[in-house]
Amino acid sequence: MSQADRFLRACHRQPVDTTPIWLMRQAGRYMAEYRALRERYTILEIIKTPDLATEVTLQPLKAFNLDAGIIFADILPILAGLGLELTFAKGEGPIIHNPLRTAADFAKLPTVLPPTEEFLGFTLQAIKQVQQELAGRVPLIGFSGAPFTLASYAIEGGSSRDYLRAKGLMYHEPQLWQQLMTALTTLVADYLIAQANAGAQALQLFDSWIGALSPTDYRHYVLPYSQRVIQLVKQAVDVPLIHFGTGTAGILPLLKEVGGDVIGVDWRIDLDVAWEMLGHEVVIQGNLDPVLLATAPIAEIKRQAALILEQAQGQPGHIFNLGHGILQYTPPENVAALVDFVHTYQGKK
Amino acid sequence: MSQADRFLRACHRQPVDTTPIWLMRQAGRYMAEYRALRERYTILEIIKTPDLATEVTLQPLKAFNLDAGIIFADILPILAGLGLELTFAKGEGPIIHNPLRTAADFAKLPTVLPPTEEFLGFTLQAIKQVQQELAGRVPLIGFSGAPFTLASYAIEGGSSRDYLRAKGLMYHEPQLWQQLMTALTTLVADYLIAQANAGAQALQLFDSWIGALSPTDYRHYVLPYSQRVIQLVKQAVDVPLIHFGTGTAGILPLLKEVGGDVIGVDWRIDLDVAWEMLGHEVVIQGNLDPVLLATAPIAEIKRQAALILEQAQGQPGHIFNLGHGILQYTPPENVAALVDFVHTYQGKK
Repeated sequence: MSQADRFLRACHRQPVDTTPIWLMRQAGRYMAEYRALRERYTILEIIKTPDLATEVTLQPLKAFNLDAGIIFADILPILAGLGLELTFAKGEGPIIHNPLRTAADFAKLPTVLPPTEEFLGFTLQAIKQVQQELAGRVPLIGFSGAPFTLASYAIEGGSSRDYLRAKGLMYHEPQLWQQLMTALTTLVADYLIAQANAGAQALQLFDSWIGALSPTDYRHYVLPYSQRVIQLVKQAVDVPLIHFGTGTAGILPLLKEVGGDVIGVDWRIDLDVAWEMLGHEVVIQGNLDPVLLATAPIAEIKRQAALILEQAQGQPGHIFNLGHGILQYTPPENVAALVDFVHTYQGKK
Repeated sequence: MSQADRFLRACHRQPVDTTPIWLMRQAGRYMAEYRALRERYTILEIIKTPDLATEVTLQPLKAFNLDAGIIFADILPILAGLGLELTFAKGEGPIIHNPLRTAADFAKLPTVLPPTEEFLGFTLQAIKQVQQELAGRVPLIGFSGAPFTLASYAIEGGSSRDYLRAKGLMYHEPQLWQQLMTALTTLVADYLIAQANAGAQALQLFDSWIGALSPTDYRHYVLPYSQRVIQLVKQAVDVPLIHFGTGTAGILPLLKEVGGDVIGVDWRIDLDVAWEMLGHEVVIQGNLDPVLLATAPIAEIKRQAALILEQAQGQPGHIFNLGHGILQYTPPENVAALVDFVHTYQGKK
């Protein structure tokens, strides 16, 4: 078995020579190579220039022995499909200049959604270029934000602590909520399918902020749309789909209902407990605390990685990852040590 | 049965005439009476002036038909017992001016901890005054932050998103971590005992930020200290103890191990699922989403409150509350409607 197969075999619950590992946001500010490029280009310039996106996507694959790449992109440019204008303010995160707050804002939404190629073609092109460069060495993952997380940004206009506006609209204007979530469902499914058609060999659906919702609200206001995204994708393309969220320990059975070949969980739950809740046919991706990787001595990182690997022993399939994106303060030598440890781990003595 | 008994009977798993309800941070900015007082005094002035703390504690009890009061105070003044200097910056939350970052900072910690009366006497005095005013109408709850949440503030120097410094110190300097957590355990236990002795009829331990921890880290770095606090309190005074945290769906069995008569859970888990994980001898407090109370139409608030009350039917004991503190944007009429609905709810039709 070559390294090229390890990640995809685990997604399909097939035996592997060792646990595959990749890291969410593995191309990013913790790498000097990335920071050097960011001195000359903004995030959006990198994302929208296939040569640059290709270069950044490959940076962590050159530096570390990771088992999959993930295309360098962001979850928010898809909102352009709804006519929303996005910028990244220095040090302040994303800003949407015309957020959806009132019925009048919603009335301006396009009635016919544009095809992915028209407004996200740069990412599709970058996927093709990365695949040429990789030449099959490791598989490439495409991704999209999920409807709820995207709707939150579209309504809040940026990051949020409590999601007051998004939830308020959800409760007060269920028809507008349905309109927005339905449009996002189409955009997200189209985007994921287009990425697979461009060459992505796996897809990840990021519903990063669903941990803000009660099980009741998740079931009623979100689950049907995420479920529909996955149905549409699985009907159209034959690639494994990873469904990821944070703070999901209380809604794991609902995530199982949504579907997906792999469920990504954060560090707030033990993997063996997560498997009990998800059922023992599901592959799990996770779940080291990114703060641990950023701040702990390497001996402690290895000790806790071993605990995770032990919890995964005898389970249907495990892809090692962090519980959320890698932090910019992470020493690259910690990443190298973790990747090596996961690959050489021999089980509990 | 009078309203005076309802809350305490539920804490003790005794039958009640209807579900008791109180709200975390029930005295606060959502009330015009509170905002009027805050125009003339800072938070710390109110907390440190027993007449004012008494007035604020009583405000929500006059406005709503709540089944318990909670003394108006803050979790952070206890850090003065470690020599830490606290202020509240306008709109920026708490700031600790001499946070614990280096071994030198830790070397300055007092070797003999001061008695509660010396630096938190104002809250003990306020408890006595509130009890005189209440004259037994409803019980009064005292509270403290738990060692982990307090240690996070002491190290970070304020609010934090990722707890990088706190976790970093925990991993790198386990002896300093132990020193700090041990001192906080003593201070917290002493403070809770002193509040019970001053007249508080129940106590709540707020470990608001434990949801940031993996089960592995919670068990190793936090559990023994919280457990010790509860042991010390239960040995000294005979009042029910509520143990509360947010984002705890993945560590509920560990919270049960810590102890406490009542476990407070947030809205991220269904109450019946929480009872399955905690065991059916535990009383649960919770768990409406405070954003729902702040933003939803009253009909939707009632619909979701009914779902919570249904999940609690046939269980050992339930105290209705929010899943975290009430938000400043909450319309007071929503609070009145919720309290009335919980008291008059007749079970599933």
